[in-house]
Amino acid sequence: MSKTYNIKRFGNVIELKADKLEEYKALHSDSHPGVRHLLTKHNIKNYSIFLHQFDDGKYFLFSYFEYVGSDFDHDMEQLKNEPENQRWWELTDPCQIPLKNRQPDEQWSQMEEVYHND
Amino acid sequence: MSKTYNIKRFGNVIELKADKLEEYKALHSDSHPGVRHLLTKHNIKNYSIFLHQFDDGKYFLFSYFEYVGSDFDHDMEQLKNEPENQRWWELTDPCQIPLKNRQPDEQWSQMEEVYHND
Repeated sequence: MSKTYNIKRFGNVIELKADKLEEYKALHSDSHPGVRHLLTKHNIKNYSIFLHQFDDGKYFLFSYFEYVGSDFDHDMEQLKNEPENQRWWELTDPCQIPLKNRQPDEQWSQMEEVYHND
Repeated sequence: MSKTYNIKRFGNVIELKADKLEEYKALHSDSHPGVRHLLTKHNIKNYSIFLHQFDDGKYFLFSYFEYVGSDFDHDMEQLKNEPENQRWWELTDPCQIPLKNRQPDEQWSQMEEVYHND
C-alpha cells in the first residue's frame, strides 16, 4: 500500500463564477472525457477538485494533485502546448475568476504546503 | 504504482488567524510530533494542509486526506476521543476561525468533490 514513487504535491485555488457552477460541474463529471488522458500523459496523478461556498457567498475551487515525473516545468510546458488542452482551457477559463494577488504566470494560485503526513 | 485499496478523499477548509500564522506552521512542521501516529492509527493517509492568503487579506487553510478504513464515522469518533488528540485540538483550535456557514458538527468545513482523476 505504500507509494514507491517520488511525488510532489500541489494545492491550488481559484474563484468559480456563481453562474457557471453547473457548467463547470458538468465539464468535470465522470461522463465528460475532459483531458484526463493528458494529465496522465504528463505525470499528473491523483487529481481532485473541491468546491466550496464561502461566507461572503463566493465560490472557490481547490485542486490537489501529485506530480510523479522528473521535470515538472517541462511537463507543464508540454501540457500547455497540447491543442486539446488549449481547447479545454477555452471552456474552463471563462468559468473562473483568478485571484488578483496571483503570480504573473498563474491562472490558479499555488498554495503553500504547511503540513504533510503520509 | 497503482493504489490497491479503496479510498475516500476529503477536502476541508477553515480560516487561519493572521496573528497565528507562525504558531500554526511551527505546530505542523516536520520536527513537531503532532498527532501523526493517530492519523495513521485511524486510517487517515496522505494528509496535506495548504495555506493561502486571499485578496481580502484573510488566510485560509485547505486540507486534503484519504480515508482508507471501512468505517469513517467510527474512526472519527475514536480519534475525537483520543486524549492526545484533544490536547492537540486545544493548541490548533485557537489558531482557526471556522466558517460561519459550516455544518453544526464541523470545525473545518467539508467541501464538495467535483472532479477526480486517478
